[in-house]
Amino acid sequence: MTGHCAEKIDPGQQTVSGVTLDGGHFELPYDRLLIATGSSAVVPACAGFEAPGVMVVKSLEDGRNIKNFLKDNIVKKAIIIGMGYIALEMCESLVGLNIAVEMVKPNPVFMPWLEPSMARAVREGLEAKGVGVYAGHTVERIETSGDGLKVICPDLTLTADMVLVGIGVNPCSGIAETADLELGVKKSIAVDRNLRTSDINIYAAGDCADAYHVVTGKKTWVPLALRANRSGWAVADNVCGKDVALDGVAGTSVFRVLDFEVARTGLSVSEAEKFGFEPVENMIKSGSKAHAHPGNTTIMVNMIGDKKSGRLLGVQMVGMEGVAHRINAPAVAMHASMTVQEYCQTDLAYAPPFGPTWDPTLTAANQLLKKM
Amino acid sequence: MTGHCAEKIDPGQQTVSGVTLDGGHFELPYDRLLIATGSSAVVPACAGFEAPGVMVVKSLEDGRNIKNFLKDNIVKKAIIIGMGYIALEMCESLVGLNIAVEMVKPNPVFMPWLEPSMARAVREGLEAKGVGVYAGHTVERIETSGDGLKVICPDLTLTADMVLVGIGVNPCSGIAETADLELGVKKSIAVDRNLRTSDINIYAAGDCADAYHVVTGKKTWVPLALRANRSGWAVADNVCGKDVALDGVAGTSVFRVLDFEVARTGLSVSEAEKFGFEPVENMIKSGSKAHAHPGNTTIMVNMIGDKKSGRLLGVQMVGMEGVAHRINAPAVAMHASMTVQEYCQTDLAYAPPFGPTWDPTLTAANQLLKKM
Repeated sequence: MTGHCAEKIDPGQQTVSGVTLDGGHFELPYDRLLIATGSSAVVPACAGFEAPGVMVVKSLEDGRNIKNFLKDNIVKKAIIIGMGYIALEMCESLVGLNIAVEMVKPNPVFMPWLEPSMARAVREGLEAKGVGVYAGHTVERIETSGDGLKVICPDLTLTADMVLVGIGVNPCSGIAETADLELGVKKSIAVDRNLRTSDINIYAAGDCADAYHVVTGKKTWVPLALRANRSGWAVADNVCGKDVALDGVAGTSVFRVLDFEVARTGLSVSEAEKFGFEPVENMIKSGSKAHAHPGNTTIMVNMIGDKKSGRLLGVQMVGMEGVAHRINAPAVAMHASMTVQEYCQTDLAYAPPFGPTWDPTLTAANQLLKKM
Repeated sequence: MTGHCAEKIDPGQQTVSGVTLDGGHFELPYDRLLIATGSSAVVPACAGFEAPGVMVVKSLEDGRNIKNFLKDNIVKKAIIIGMGYIALEMCESLVGLNIAVEMVKPNPVFMPWLEPSMARAVREGLEAKGVGVYAGHTVERIETSGDGLKVICPDLTLTADMVLVGIGVNPCSGIAETADLELGVKKSIAVDRNLRTSDINIYAAGDCADAYHVVTGKKTWVPLALRANRSGWAVADNVCGKDVALDGVAGTSVFRVLDFEVARTGLSVSEAEKFGFEPVENMIKSGSKAHAHPGNTTIMVNMIGDKKSGRLLGVQMVGMEGVAHRINAPAVAMHASMTVQEYCQTDLAYAPPFGPTWDPTLTAANQLLKKM
């Protein structure tokens, strides 16, 4: 039913209604309903963000807009507002096109979820490649002048040919809210393990819905691809009569920015504290290959455990290679509620081109154990 | 006590005795004894293996011998007897030095522990790079002639400037056997989880000792680096009064040969059958990166589950990149006795440069589940 814009769910009547493309009204009955409205890019309510050359990074159409703008204009310099995964991935893409990049955000801490010395390594790596990192500056407005765009903060003015806005997304839960469905973390739609909302005939899946966190056992909102995709499959199964319950997310993610692979799984120290754990963290440096192997580079691993239960709570990793898939072993360990001590015992692969005898995550676990 | 060669352990007297470098006799008392005699390269009892230019690949000294031989001689062609990890790693090194390589072994099946189509992909890759793979030929003798070395099988004669022998290792358990200590798999020294032999005052660690397999719960002998290293640390702790018990090995390993990364963890189908499981296997092909990402290559994943219990039993993987560390996630899952269904639920990292939304091991698990 393309061209139909759903505006209202009536759970009592089991109908969805809205408007059609030609301005007409529609009303559809349902036995089971799936809300898969996704998320939308956050855009600050400031002047100038609607100007040509200022673009968000969320949808396929956004991507096409950016590509077209780059084709139709001479872009020598770009400003990225935001420093999250998407903003940093855009930084990588633009630097790859030989476009000078400056990044700006209000929080003075670069990658606040990352152990400080690891965040510093990434920041210094970006700066060494000429990327301007302006953390601690709130954008007040964007002005369009003859020679381009001006991003204006109280204490800083940056100029560029293009501005990308990547400061996060919000769940599109409006239609669920007006239908009085229960909302969860950050106003995402609250769902049970079977993706059912507070109305048993209505499911929600994808970025609009919340999820359980396997470490905390509590609700979280992680708008990432695998969880969204997996929840869609689970809804299909459940609507068709199977009983598919999802364990939840470990908050595993990875991105690449220039020379670095940055990955995480589980909780950071501050998140762990918030959920009542007694977190202990320890950061180690290890090698991406055996120490004498050509091309060996440094991998930094920060591991977090719970002093009370011994449980593995989280891992963060930064390196030039071998980070992306290494994060999956501790992610699986958290699904199994392993302790740090149990993780220490795991039999991980070794060969000189791929790592030291003790995988960096094992060295991290061995060292963390001494503090626990 | 360098220059002392231990020849006999007397568990009753708690002494070790042997000969010194100058032909004298020594006898040492002990409270606790560690046997860390390692393993030794298997050399066939055939004529010609003692000739110059025929070398085994086991110790640091062996490596130096090979390097010196390459320096002192013109080596255009080498024959490697054996096709295991070490033989294949030597193949990679020699091809990297522009030396033509031919490999020969008695078993007609190339990499018998690997799913056949995956083994074929690796074999064809080697052959495409000019490596001769002669599986199914038993070496009878080596002859030295004016123009080099001849490796002679009943139906095949190969000539070369150098011959490397990499057909495996045996545990050095002779001294334990004569002391009437219990021996285990392949005559390795039987140890409990604390690395204690059948005599409570004697420990054994490293390649000479056996280990528990986390999937079967039974003894196995896996002479690999991490296990050897880990068991040494555990003995040190135990001798010093701590109580450190090791869970065991998952049989995780990886090696690189030319374009390929080849990894495994857990059991193959035939191993699983031997231990009373009802194995089901399924092989999938997936991508090393997101499908549209530049440089995306094929990863083949064979996953094995137990029809009776649902447990994940093993994974084998072959690809050009992204294999080595990917094997660790299912390895951890096997330490946690996860079912294939539980593995399906794990939250693994995704970003386009590093893999598809569903990690290849998740796709393998999803597809295997349909057969179970």
